[in-house]
Amino acid sequence: MHQDLHMTTTRPAHTPLASLPTRFLSPTDVAALVRTRGLPVCLNELAEAIGNDFLRWPDFDKTARVAAHSEVGVIELMPIADTSQYAFKYVNGHPYNAQHGLPTVMAFGVLADVATGAPLLVSELTLTTALRTAATSAMAARTLARPDSRTMALIGNGAQSEFQALAFQHLVGTTQVRLFDVDPAATAKLVRNLAGSGLVVTACASTAEAVQGADIVTTVTADKTNATILSADMLAPGMHINAVGGDCPGKTELAADVLRAARVFVEYEPQTRLEGDLQQMPADFPVTELWRVLAGQASGRTRPEDITVFDSVGFALEDYSALRYLHAQAAALGLGQPLALIPALANPRDLYSLTRPAAVPAPTRTAVPELV
Amino acid sequence: MHQDLHMTTTRPAHTPLASLPTRFLSPTDVAALVRTRGLPVCLNELAEAIGNDFLRWPDFDKTARVAAHSEVGVIELMPIADTSQYAFKYVNGHPYNAQHGLPTVMAFGVLADVATGAPLLVSELTLTTALRTAATSAMAARTLARPDSRTMALIGNGAQSEFQALAFQHLVGTTQVRLFDVDPAATAKLVRNLAGSGLVVTACASTAEAVQGADIVTTVTADKTNATILSADMLAPGMHINAVGGDCPGKTELAADVLRAARVFVEYEPQTRLEGDLQQMPADFPVTELWRVLAGQASGRTRPEDITVFDSVGFALEDYSALRYLHAQAAALGLGQPLALIPALANPRDLYSLTRPAAVPAPTRTAVPELV
Repeated sequence: MHQDLHMTTTRPAHTPLASLPTRFLSPTDVAALVRTRGLPVCLNELAEAIGNDFLRWPDFDKTARVAAHSEVGVIELMPIADTSQYAFKYVNGHPYNAQHGLPTVMAFGVLADVATGAPLLVSELTLTTALRTAATSAMAARTLARPDSRTMALIGNGAQSEFQALAFQHLVGTTQVRLFDVDPAATAKLVRNLAGSGLVVTACASTAEAVQGADIVTTVTADKTNATILSADMLAPGMHINAVGGDCPGKTELAADVLRAARVFVEYEPQTRLEGDLQQMPADFPVTELWRVLAGQASGRTRPEDITVFDSVGFALEDYSALRYLHAQAAALGLGQPLALIPALANPRDLYSLTRPAAVPAPTRTAVPELV
Repeated sequence: MHQDLHMTTTRPAHTPLASLPTRFLSPTDVAALVRTRGLPVCLNELAEAIGNDFLRWPDFDKTARVAAHSEVGVIELMPIADTSQYAFKYVNGHPYNAQHGLPTVMAFGVLADVATGAPLLVSELTLTTALRTAATSAMAARTLARPDSRTMALIGNGAQSEFQALAFQHLVGTTQVRLFDVDPAATAKLVRNLAGSGLVVTACASTAEAVQGADIVTTVTADKTNATILSADMLAPGMHINAVGGDCPGKTELAADVLRAARVFVEYEPQTRLEGDLQQMPADFPVTELWRVLAGQASGRTRPEDITVFDSVGFALEDYSALRYLHAQAAALGLGQPLALIPALANPRDLYSLTRPAAVPAPTRTAVPELV
């Protein structure tokens, strides 16, 4: 990795390397990784990476994400670090973006070296967010759902729904999915994309119909309102609810009575109190952080008839895990391109040298060596 | 700008554009901008842009930056938004980075559309941070320093020092600079870089010697300690102190008595209370936000003999202004390259289509149209 990718023409041959190259992964690169490894393998490896990092929970410098809200959406930054690496994600949530031909959720992120602050990786995270969210949901369900769970209701059939369906099929053992979305076109798209998956797929006319007979209910809707997608009368003993879409202030999916009837598990409690379906509940409403269940410090499901809720909002640690996974896989598979993000300077205190007319080449992108 | 840059081979010809391209500016691109416009013009235009945005202070959704501290440095995210655009900067501070051949401060940032969350610009901000910090310092000094100030002491002769010297020369009217750094090699580099600038340059043996006769004292040191670069016995009536280097918890440059002797001006008070030289003072120590002086809501210097301190830590609004300036200049000058950060999808709810084997081209970077 020690190549001077950025400004080769300005560096005398004898000067030591002045910068690590930053690797860039586009959506095309990440899609190539998924096709090369296979989606089930990627989801499984991501779930393993995320689970292993959840077991290191106390090692991380954690903070609730920083959100900028507007009338039509939200833009968030999600930083996290341990003693060796720092990661952050930029992610938006704009439920009406389809009107502009844009995804509701778009994201990218960076992995950096704590020892120097140098960015190691800049990656697309739009596709990756769908992958890591589904992997996290499945990882939680393996701990919280009844082991004999086979049927999942999937409410909200948008951009993330295929990944949820396939993660639960391959990581949890789901064999049937029952679909509902307020927009039948979204459900039709999901039905098409799941054809050939081996899942038994049923399109339903309502949430109430979809949840009938479901062992697991996944809600992954996008509307930025306090909606009641799932009400207490739809619950059945032993159900596991994977609540993904209620993930920012003013955006909920579950009726408060659903939470009251259940044992509730969260990622990072301070963030979920603000953003999750939990935002409806009093500050002392009991919840358990998922990492404590994984680490054996708290119990998950205790009886087959328990109703469990994973009130997922998405936590920075999942993106840290995903960025590290992408970084390692990209190196192994030779994916990505170098990105000239940080100047390479013969003397790092001579930043001014960049601006001297004689010292700098024309601003055309010169040929750069491939990252290895 | 409405071009499908990302995945041209997957989009049917009749499909409307599914993504705005993101423009990428490397250090080489920003250096080319500086050379094309000229450094004094760039500094002046940046100071004007920052000043105009400071006058719109109440329009912004402001927050103190989010810092991750380690033993050897800090990594920070600095977000800000108004109703139309969102910006953030990633920046580190690692005072021992020269040992690794890396700059102490490295940065990059993003400008995004609040209406959709789409990133419009990804830019290097290492060089740009030096430019915008110097422009902000000069803008503050035009308001706070005595109008007849001609001599500046410049303590700390590292990567940002040339930009401070030249900003004060061209924007404030400084004619002489008196230099000191604990490392004589840093001072020698600064002397070389200022040759031909028209400034009268004097290398001094100590801070006390450098500040003798100075109208303005700029401190821009990097050590991450509670240092006392400037003590009260070095002050003279009428001095303006531009304190740039004390910018994170545990990192100060001014003795508390310097602040007590002065009228103190800050960027964003909640952040400076944590990060500035102000961190040494009680919570009720009086300060004035600079924007209020610019807007005529508060007085700046009231008498020639006042001692004024600009306790600068660097605020996200300055990067917002700089990113917008870069974005406009890059468009005008045709600088930069498209960056495939966000997937372009024929159906934005069909993110899964990216991963289908038949639908996606090989992950080689295909030729992309130039941004115009």
